[in-house]
Amino acid sequence: MGRQKVFLDKMVSTFRIRNLLLRQSLAECLGTLILVMFGCGALAQLELSKGSHGIFLTVNLAFGFAATLGILVCGQVSGGHLNPAVTFALCLLGRERWRKFPMFFLFQIIGAFFGAAVIYAMYYDALCEVHGGFDTTGPNSTAGIFATYPGTHLSFMNGVFDQLIGTAALIVCILAIVDPYNNPIPQGLEAFTVGFVVLAIGLSMGFNSGYAVNPARDLGPRLFTSIAGWGYEVFTIGSGWFLIPVFVPFFGTIIGVVLYQMMVGLHVEAEVRERRSSEQENVRLTNVNSNNSKGGTKEVN
Amino acid sequence: MGRQKVFLDKMVSTFRIRNLLLRQSLAECLGTLILVMFGCGALAQLELSKGSHGIFLTVNLAFGFAATLGILVCGQVSGGHLNPAVTFALCLLGRERWRKFPMFFLFQIIGAFFGAAVIYAMYYDALCEVHGGFDTTGPNSTAGIFATYPGTHLSFMNGVFDQLIGTAALIVCILAIVDPYNNPIPQGLEAFTVGFVVLAIGLSMGFNSGYAVNPARDLGPRLFTSIAGWGYEVFTIGSGWFLIPVFVPFFGTIIGVVLYQMMVGLHVEAEVRERRSSEQENVRLTNVNSNNSKGGTKEVN
Amino acid sequence: MGRQKVFLDKMVSTFRIRNLLLRQSLAECLGTLILVMFGCGALAQLELSKGSHGIFLTVNLAFGFAATLGILVCGQVSGGHLNPAVTFALCLLGRERWRKFPMFFLFQIIGAFFGAAVIYAMYYDALCEVHGGFDTTGPNSTAGIFATYPGTHLSFMNGVFDQLIGTAALIVCILAIVDPYNNPIPQGLEAFTVGFVVLAIGLSMGFNSGYAVNPARDLGPRLFTSIAGWGYEVFTIGSGWFLIPVFVPFFGTIIGVVLYQMMVGLHVEAEVRERRSSEQENVRLTNVNSNNSKGGTKEVN
Amino acid sequence: MGRQKVFLDKMVSTFRIRNLLLRQSLAECLGTLILVMFGCGALAQLELSKGSHGIFLTVNLAFGFAATLGILVCGQVSGGHLNPAVTFALCLLGRERWRKFPMFFLFQIIGAFFGAAVIYAMYYDALCEVHGGFDTTGPNSTAGIFATYPGTHLSFMNGVFDQLIGTAALIVCILAIVDPYNNPIPQGLEAFTVGFVVLAIGLSMGFNSGYAVNPARDLGPRLFTSIAGWGYEVFTIGSGWFLIPVFVPFFGTIIGVVLYQMMVGLHVEAEVRERRSSEQENVRLTNVNSNNSKGGTKEVN
Repeated sequence: MGRQKVFLDKMVSTFRIRNLLLRQSLAECLGTLILVMFGCGALAQLELSKGSHGIFLTVNLAFGFAATLGILVCGQVSGGHLNPAVTFALCLLGRERWRKFPMFFLFQIIGAFFGAAVIYAMYYDALCEVHGGFDTTGPNSTAGIFATYPGTHLSFMNGVFDQLIGTAALIVCILAIVDPYNNPIPQGLEAFTVGFVVLAIGLSMGFNSGYAVNPARDLGPRLFTSIAGWGYEVFTIGSGWFLIPVFVPFFGTIIGVVLYQMMVGLHVEAEVRERRSSEQENVRLTNVNSNNSKGGTKEVN
Repeated sequence: MGRQKVFLDKMVSTFRIRNLLLRQSLAECLGTLILVMFGCGALAQLELSKGSHGIFLTVNLAFGFAATLGILVCGQVSGGHLNPAVTFALCLLGRERWRKFPMFFLFQIIGAFFGAAVIYAMYYDALCEVHGGFDTTGPNSTAGIFATYPGTHLSFMNGVFDQLIGTAALIVCILAIVDPYNNPIPQGLEAFTVGFVVLAIGLSMGFNSGYAVNPARDLGPRLFTSIAGWGYEVFTIGSGWFLIPVFVPFFGTIIGVVLYQMMVGLHVEAEVRERRSSEQENVRLTNVNSNNSKGGTKEVN
Repeated sequence: MGRQKVFLDKMVSTFRIRNLLLRQSLAECLGTLILVMFGCGALAQLELSKGSHGIFLTVNLAFGFAATLGILVCGQVSGGHLNPAVTFALCLLGRERWRKFPMFFLFQIIGAFFGAAVIYAMYYDALCEVHGGFDTTGPNSTAGIFATYPGTHLSFMNGVFDQLIGTAALIVCILAIVDPYNNPIPQGLEAFTVGFVVLAIGLSMGFNSGYAVNPARDLGPRLFTSIAGWGYEVFTIGSGWFLIPVFVPFFGTIIGVVLYQMMVGLHVEAEVRERRSSEQENVRLTNVNSNNSKGGTKEVN
Repeated sequence: MGRQKVFLDKMVSTFRIRNLLLRQSLAECLGTLILVMFGCGALAQLELSKGSHGIFLTVNLAFGFAATLGILVCGQVSGGHLNPAVTFALCLLGRERWRKFPMFFLFQIIGAFFGAAVIYAMYYDALCEVHGGFDTTGPNSTAGIFATYPGTHLSFMNGVFDQLIGTAALIVCILAIVDPYNNPIPQGLEAFTVGFVVLAIGLSMGFNSGYAVNPARDLGPRLFTSIAGWGYEVFTIGSGWFLIPVFVPFFGTIIGVVLYQMMVGLHVEAEVRERRSSEQENVRLTNVNSNNSKGGTKEVN
């Protein structure tokens, strides 16, 4: 076991990356890969088995647990955002630096791209067996396994609302869970609770267009499908639907941040700060007193 | 980032609300909004997709996790009742002040009203597509997405029993979870456990009329539907059914409180108090003794 | 609020029960009532809605969470057995006194009886609407909501095996969870884990006869149905099937206890004891040494 | 109770096994038995009830919770691998000794063998009732209850990919959960989290061939079926398919280990080590300083 240990230690020193931002971006990449791999995998299992190996609930459960596991894999290193909307919300609140945002966005898209590729490799035979397995429309369309497309009933306006509301709901819940002034859950359970949020959104907001609420989760797999056989159609369908899950979530994030802060966050923060400053005041007064008494003692001495 | 921080700090001091009861009521409002948004959203997804995107189990899961998330969002500030019956139970036991009850009830209804409005906006196109999307009766009725209505088999008397039993079961379990003399679960997991209670009630008591067991969750969305297109019928259906989920849960609460206290709560409380008072007795005796001995020492001195 | 507090304190001193065993038995009664109420409620919801409000999975989930909630309600007081087989296992291992066994068994049956009664009251209208709602056999039989009956494919011998294996599996897992020498989970999560055990048993061992694995859960509701309209047939069906879930689980308990102790429990216990005794040995030696040195010091003095 | 205690103590000293590796292997055996018993039990319930008592989701849930319970039963003693691929991964990383690997592999296969035997005994009548209950092919084939077989759409190459990807996903998540340098979850929740990993894999990667991702879970039950009535065909089907879930997972393990270490693990480890060594450096410097100052003080003295 001695030689193995030497080898392992050598690996650590050889492949170590010293740039913190790159390390965090790599971790986000792996986390988002896991999110998309399990989530889109469940969609593939449902679609390709024609319902024998899944129902819509299994997709919701898979995305929920995929979010949990993705966060667990990378959370210690990068915070486990897995979603540019979450990074954006934390930047808005001054809890993350803005320069993280473009790097995380890029690597989250890359991770989602490869997550889709893994599922494509895994279910290649099953995709080929479906007549027209690489169609984007029609009853045998399989493009919906990877990226989201609007339901036939959905207008453009309602699609915008759908993503606005979905992302706002996600952000309100995530802010409550990670608010440093409002600690509702034991440390270490954040990943599980965020998974429950994703599950709840899927159970209640998934019918319109498949609840992307995450620009990277939607754009990465869409890019993959455009080069893997489904073609440029994945961008033109629904007169440019793909723009909605990429841009609207950021506006939803703003709504979510304002709503949470106005109704809960601000007041908790103000209260905690006041308590702390009064404690510091007390400490200073105590110090003054003890200095005085010390001084007095000294004078007595 | 300096200017952003200044701006955020200014927000805190500008929008801060100093009245504690108002702050708590606002938090209850947001929590109940989340409960109704996810819960009724799942009902909408089930009904509007005609079963392709949900089964009754998904509704149960959604209400359970919605309760958990609603409590997490507001629990630190207001206790996370989300339900006037819970507020009532805690007032009955002297753990909350009675003046909270009307304020919480009002804001819980307001939150439930807006939760229903969010789902209405989200699924507007899908609601319109259903032939007669704003009917309260008939096979295409969609009123049941928002408020509860009795099943065709249910008599008035059995409806009363249904809400009595459901609320009593809810309150017995919640009292056990939050009993200060009986701490069965690690701190911070209360929200999850209450979510499981709501889930269990949905799994076993949802067939009669949709397990409201919460006056605010039922009345708020019903008010919304009455002005959003379903009309005054939402109150007259079932010869005034709407009164049952508004008033009966409070009687169920009383049954639940008495049952829990008689069979478990009282005895635990009595035991804990006795132990404490005997400890204090010991402390006093010890003090007396040590005083005596000190006295003795003093006399010796 | 002063008068309310006085009233509540008076209640505590008036209704307090001083006998510990009676208090524990009452708690077991309420816990088992909750187990049967939620569990059989889910069976009723599945059967009476003819599958629109439940699938077999919802029954499994309901029994699992019902076990969790039942344990949470009474666990602090009585340990939360809810099942005479569990009480029996703990008595076998010397962790509970044998005199608890008959009292707990009796009150567990009483709790299960009333749990069935609650579900009967809740779904009375729906039971009446089913043609032949109080039949024990035939396609509209509703007796299976309350007690377990063997599937048509099941022979007597296989029924015995079914209960033997199910109870042994339950007991092996519960012993691992509550083993004082083997602490795999954080304190306070035992109730949730036992709920998962009950869920897992339902998912995998429920097809033969409905996984009673609990004499009280089966006998209490069966007694209730025999007097509530289903008649004496509930005992004669399957040539005395009712005896199997009452007596066989105790033999399954013995198998489970022996299996767990032989393969894991004994060895963990032996190791822990050895470590402790060697520590005590060390402590004694240290004491001897320090006594010697003190002695030495004294002699020097 | 005195005599019982004496008897129990005697049992401990009589049946105690002093060899640590054997004790650990026995624990692995029981854990894997539980994994296969609950997991294959759910498959049996789904197949034999023809869908009335299960859906594919219940199988996923059962395998997930079975993994959790199996780990809880043996985790304190043996680490709770239940899977030779997990043992292999930990050996690769130098966290377990290589000599454990063959012993654990053997006892995991034995445990899986007996887990299948328990389910066979439990559902013997139901297996016999299915026309051709012991067929390995055809519409009434029941061999799939115990071991995995490829779907009709699956080519050999895609089958290899399926097991490679599935095992790599499993190992990446498990390494993140048990990484000593990366502690994302509270201690004691590892078993639950691994259960969620198994659940997520089942939800998204179960359609091709039933997600073995565990050589012991597949080989043990296959051996059992070959001698219990299904015959030698269980090895020849799919032109030697049985080799894939036995050998491919180890290659998937290597991919998973490299991927996790390169993208997250190595960097966390390097950082933690650097911090520790700089702390030790500080400690040494402090010691030198304090020695110097002491020295100085001494010189002053």
